[in-house]
Amino acid sequence: MRKPKIRPSEPFHVHMEVSPKLTPILSNSLTPDQFRAGAARFPGSDDGLEVTFGSDPDSLGDHLATCEVLVMAGPADLSAVVKKAPRLRWVHYTGTGIEGILSGQLRPGVIVTNARGVQTPKALEYSLAAVLMLNNRFPEFFTNQRESRWRNCASTAVAGKSIVILGMGALGAAAGTMMKQFGLRVIGVSRSGRPHPSADRVCGPGDLAAVLPTADFVLVTLPLTAETRGMIGRAELDLLPRHAGVINIGRGPVIDYDALMDKLRKGELGGAILDVFYEEPLPANSPLWSTPNLIVTPHSSLMDPVNYGPRCFDIFFDNLRRYRKGQDLRNVIDVTRGY
Amino acid sequence: MRKPKIRPSEPFHVHMEVSPKLTPILSNSLTPDQFRAGAARFPGSDDGLEVTFGSDPDSLGDHLATCEVLVMAGPADLSAVVKKAPRLRWVHYTGTGIEGILSGQLRPGVIVTNARGVQTPKALEYSLAAVLMLNNRFPEFFTNQRESRWRNCASTAVAGKSIVILGMGALGAAAGTMMKQFGLRVIGVSRSGRPHPSADRVCGPGDLAAVLPTADFVLVTLPLTAETRGMIGRAELDLLPRHAGVINIGRGPVIDYDALMDKLRKGELGGAILDVFYEEPLPANSPLWSTPNLIVTPHSSLMDPVNYGPRCFDIFFDNLRRYRKGQDLRNVIDVTRGY
Repeated sequence: MRKPKIRPSEPFHVHMEVSPKLTPILSNSLTPDQFRAGAARFPGSDDGLEVTFGSDPDSLGDHLATCEVLVMAGPADLSAVVKKAPRLRWVHYTGTGIEGILSGQLRPGVIVTNARGVQTPKALEYSLAAVLMLNNRFPEFFTNQRESRWRNCASTAVAGKSIVILGMGALGAAAGTMMKQFGLRVIGVSRSGRPHPSADRVCGPGDLAAVLPTADFVLVTLPLTAETRGMIGRAELDLLPRHAGVINIGRGPVIDYDALMDKLRKGELGGAILDVFYEEPLPANSPLWSTPNLIVTPHSSLMDPVNYGPRCFDIFFDNLRRYRKGQDLRNVIDVTRGY
Repeated sequence: MRKPKIRPSEPFHVHMEVSPKLTPILSNSLTPDQFRAGAARFPGSDDGLEVTFGSDPDSLGDHLATCEVLVMAGPADLSAVVKKAPRLRWVHYTGTGIEGILSGQLRPGVIVTNARGVQTPKALEYSLAAVLMLNNRFPEFFTNQRESRWRNCASTAVAGKSIVILGMGALGAAAGTMMKQFGLRVIGVSRSGRPHPSADRVCGPGDLAAVLPTADFVLVTLPLTAETRGMIGRAELDLLPRHAGVINIGRGPVIDYDALMDKLRKGELGGAILDVFYEEPLPANSPLWSTPNLIVTPHSSLMDPVNYGPRCFDIFFDNLRRYRKGQDLRNVIDVTRGY
């Protein structure tokens, strides 16, 4: 974690903005009331604070005129409005992948933090469910059910099989630990390729071609960056065994979905379970909906509608205390890398 | 386990019959070769044995004329042919629920053993997958996907929720242990109602009405007997909370599927995942296929096509050794109770 090198001036102005594009799933969880409840859990963190709340993109610029800290719930194009925010020094984003709030860089010196870790409990459940579903061939069951077709279909148990996890951040690491408990061999792929206790082996992106042919399952947890876009293209999919299953809980464009659909239609892959897409909501005319052995879930799958907001505000108010003491913040994003 | 009270006569005749109705999933696993491989794992168990193999229901009677031990793979009506088997003393069935081989009682003194425990590793995976799928609302995702419909849909994590497990036999107990590890509160329902380490609480069938209203999930692992048929009828389903999910890996007729479909169509239940049916294969015109928030899997889901046979023959040859020594057998079925 990098040192923010910020000394706050008091009193100061914190603005919380709720985007109209915030997923309805979280609309009862990321609210001014939950903000206040979070402050109450961290006594003293909000002394002398001037807090405003807004949910209108047109007036966000006005709030930003005096705002030092912005809590941004849901997507917004901050790259534009931030020019009107001379005092802005810290943006706390209630999501994780920041491509929804920043198309480019912020002004140097503005810190961005995110909700990394907040989704972990639900994401773990989803990932485990998805691996067990792929192993037990639920994508085939589902495709058969659509056609009222009984077809015997079975598989061996999951222990001893291999999973390649792309991304060893909070989600990937937690998933790796869980998969190891189920007797899976875990191969992590990260930018650094550094060993990690949650994986039996970690390699760098350059080793993908070597590990994909050994994968029974692939779990993508990557954010969307210039480096990750298209990382799993047709060539990479072609390296997977025919029975392999693919899960994407990171960002859609990390995988070439056209190539994925093509391989599923030809029976060249075991199945896929996808929670993220190039365009969301996934349009009704997308061929993904009806691709055989492919399961679509609506991105909200990793979100806990009750606990998401409180966990997110716990991070914020813990950070607010640190900020006011000039200490390092948690969950700082490297805006250049994008995560 | 009850004492078989049998002293074998040597040499003696063991016949293995493979039913033409054996599920294709197990046709490479329950074979004469796997029988011989099993014998090799238990040296001495087959000394002096006369072994025959058959797969023709019409000639089964001929084999039974001299047969003392019958290994029956797949369904068959043994109640009839057993009259032609004067020397028959032991039937080892490679399934678990014996309603497929016995419509009534065998001759007194004929022991029946089954494959109890063989399915446990896969059944555990299936049960865990099903609970996580219900908790993560995959039945809704499936239904929405059929209609190319994106609908945000989320839930809290599974820890702290309650599961009622009907049947505390090998499957139910193993599932209970697993669910406890995931932080679920486990309420077992068994004939005896005796406490069990795999459950936080066990009650008898008479307490069903008291525990169903507390269930987030219901897992049915019961065999089909006169007592279990229709145990979960409309009245019992009406006691469940609206968000509850139902899983059946026991036998179809334990649950009133007409009432279940009715409640799912009205949105009065969260979802259902069913592996067993009144008629299997499930007919193409069954309304179950298209019932909202209901997932159909083809009974083969609990079977491990590679390890099923070897595990089954391990039980048989271990028992064969015991039988020849006049010792108690494992996995003896109480034919009167039906399990």
